[in-house]
Amino acid sequence: MPEFRKDPVVERWVIIAAERSKRPQSKLARTATTQSGICPFCAGNESMTPPPTLILADGKPSIHAATWSVRVVPNKYPALINQEFTALQTDGLYNSMNGAGVHEVIIESPRHVTAMAALSVTEIDLVLYAYQQRLLHLRRDPRWRYALLYKNEGVEAGATLPHSHSQITALPMVPTAPREEMEGAKRYFYSSGRCVYCDIVEREKKSGERVVAETERFIVFCPFASRVACEMWILPKRHWSCFEFGSRDDFPALAQLLRETLVRLSRGFDEPAFNYFLHNHPLDEPEKDHCHWHLEILPKLNHVAGFEWGSGCYMNPMAPEDAARLLRDVAL
Amino acid sequence: MPEFRKDPVVERWVIIAAERSKRPQSKLARTATTQSGICPFCAGNESMTPPPTLILADGKPSIHAATWSVRVVPNKYPALINQEFTALQTDGLYNSMNGAGVHEVIIESPRHVTAMAALSVTEIDLVLYAYQQRLLHLRRDPRWRYALLYKNEGVEAGATLPHSHSQITALPMVPTAPREEMEGAKRYFYSSGRCVYCDIVEREKKSGERVVAETERFIVFCPFASRVACEMWILPKRHWSCFEFGSRDDFPALAQLLRETLVRLSRGFDEPAFNYFLHNHPLDEPEKDHCHWHLEILPKLNHVAGFEWGSGCYMNPMAPEDAARLLRDVAL
Repeated sequence: MPEFRKDPVVERWVIIAAERSKRPQSKLARTATTQSGICPFCAGNESMTPPPTLILADGKPSIHAATWSVRVVPNKYPALINQEFTALQTDGLYNSMNGAGVHEVIIESPRHVTAMAALSVTEIDLVLYAYQQRLLHLRRDPRWRYALLYKNEGVEAGATLPHSHSQITALPMVPTAPREEMEGAKRYFYSSGRCVYCDIVEREKKSGERVVAETERFIVFCPFASRVACEMWILPKRHWSCFEFGSRDDFPALAQLLRETLVRLSRGFDEPAFNYFLHNHPLDEPEKDHCHWHLEILPKLNHVAGFEWGSGCYMNPMAPEDAARLLRDVAL
Repeated sequence: MPEFRKDPVVERWVIIAAERSKRPQSKLARTATTQSGICPFCAGNESMTPPPTLILADGKPSIHAATWSVRVVPNKYPALINQEFTALQTDGLYNSMNGAGVHEVIIESPRHVTAMAALSVTEIDLVLYAYQQRLLHLRRDPRWRYALLYKNEGVEAGATLPHSHSQITALPMVPTAPREEMEGAKRYFYSSGRCVYCDIVEREKKSGERVVAETERFIVFCPFASRVACEMWILPKRHWSCFEFGSRDDFPALAQLLRETLVRLSRGFDEPAFNYFLHNHPLDEPEKDHCHWHLEILPKLNHVAGFEWGSGCYMNPMAPEDAARLLRDVAL
């Protein structure tokens, strides 16, 4: 059974999930399900995955639907188990908890598409709508404090199945990365009365040198302190804390921009593997003035290696101003 | 010219070093020097690297030596430049500094050996001695607050040249990862009067289930909250803060254990790529009772992907107790 463990020195949780070593294409297992030629995420192979927690058909949630656009299923090799969580076990030096959480896969199309950039705007809009529906669902369960939505596209980004999909993991705590961001944003808010992300958006619009694209409601830019080559953040231009409280008509515009951004990356840099994740407001808490959701896209163009692991500091071989110019110049 | 930039929300420095995209085998450059068949780190090709800052010949430092055992040279594509550093440039939202620092390569053998495990104990002893010499040298320069020693072995670990080598980067600040460790160790020390690493060593010796190997002076174990499969830490069993203050006769014993540990990993898990790094005491500060150097080895057996990037929490598919058992059982 999976278990949360905390490092005895620093604020770092790990999930020890030995069951995941049985995954297809796991380097530990050294086998590949796709060698069988059967993709468990394609239409017609629904029996290869656990029963869905959400199906979108004709653009709407549905329980039973023979044909579907987006299908959300529990991860077959979950890092966390949907169960009651136990109190923190501590012996002074080592702390642990049982691995309670939710781990689901969002299958983004019934077709065997291997790049999100190859989905249509309508399909991506439905993926975002599925994100919203799952976040709204998870908010209702007081066990979960945070839900991370993320995507691994390409083997180098950690994808074990090529069929385009995202994942959502709900956790009983707010993990380090979004917590440190919220603490930083709160410090800024307390000292200035302003949302740091709103100020970053204003600043990027003004200078323009790191902006990749901008629409009426959203902006994409390479952040000032980009960790990796072609790192991009997508933010709503208006202050918007909880992704899942967006109105239904926000998502087509976001889908259009997300698709265009991924096409820029794919055409400009030879279809690199990438990760993205949504830093969103914690679940089940009153909305905070200093939280402002954003999607962070991290392409795998350069290796994160010993220096980064050892220091927590990043060596980025491409200035974000150069990356933004190259990405802007990609013909769409 | 390289530049340090600080994220406007969290404590995260990046080094924007566009010169590094010209490196051989950089995915951004998409060329490979080794295609020429000439390795710049092999004996005879010394003119392909900048002039050395240290040569070990006949086991001793030497400036001029036709034959050498270890050769330390400035990185040809440095992330940082050895220069005076400017004051922090700040405009309220974005902070930056010029990229002042030292970035050197430790060439571990004149022979074209591509795995550190294939070096002899004597050769590894000299590598450790070179680490010590460079740390002692860097300590004398008040500009540098911290030096990170690290290794990338294998393409998946970010190595751009196959010839076995390590790197050392001196920085004008103590970077996030070792600073957070020192803060955690200080909290523990203030509340218990003890070094947390000494207590971890005692605890691991007592239970034994995560111990990979133990000698008179050193111990190797898979840490309780291992981030990745087969993560291993090597520590001195006695309290020892600054690696570079070790006596000359400590290093052969450490070299023996390090070599044996890398052989276990290589034989047990099919020569995986790995990173290691030395978390050491900051430079140019009085020795602290809560600092205790350790070498962290992170094999690339499983991918670190969107979940880890987005959460700062790690999903590890192999319990450290299982990893330690497998590593212990490798025939040497």
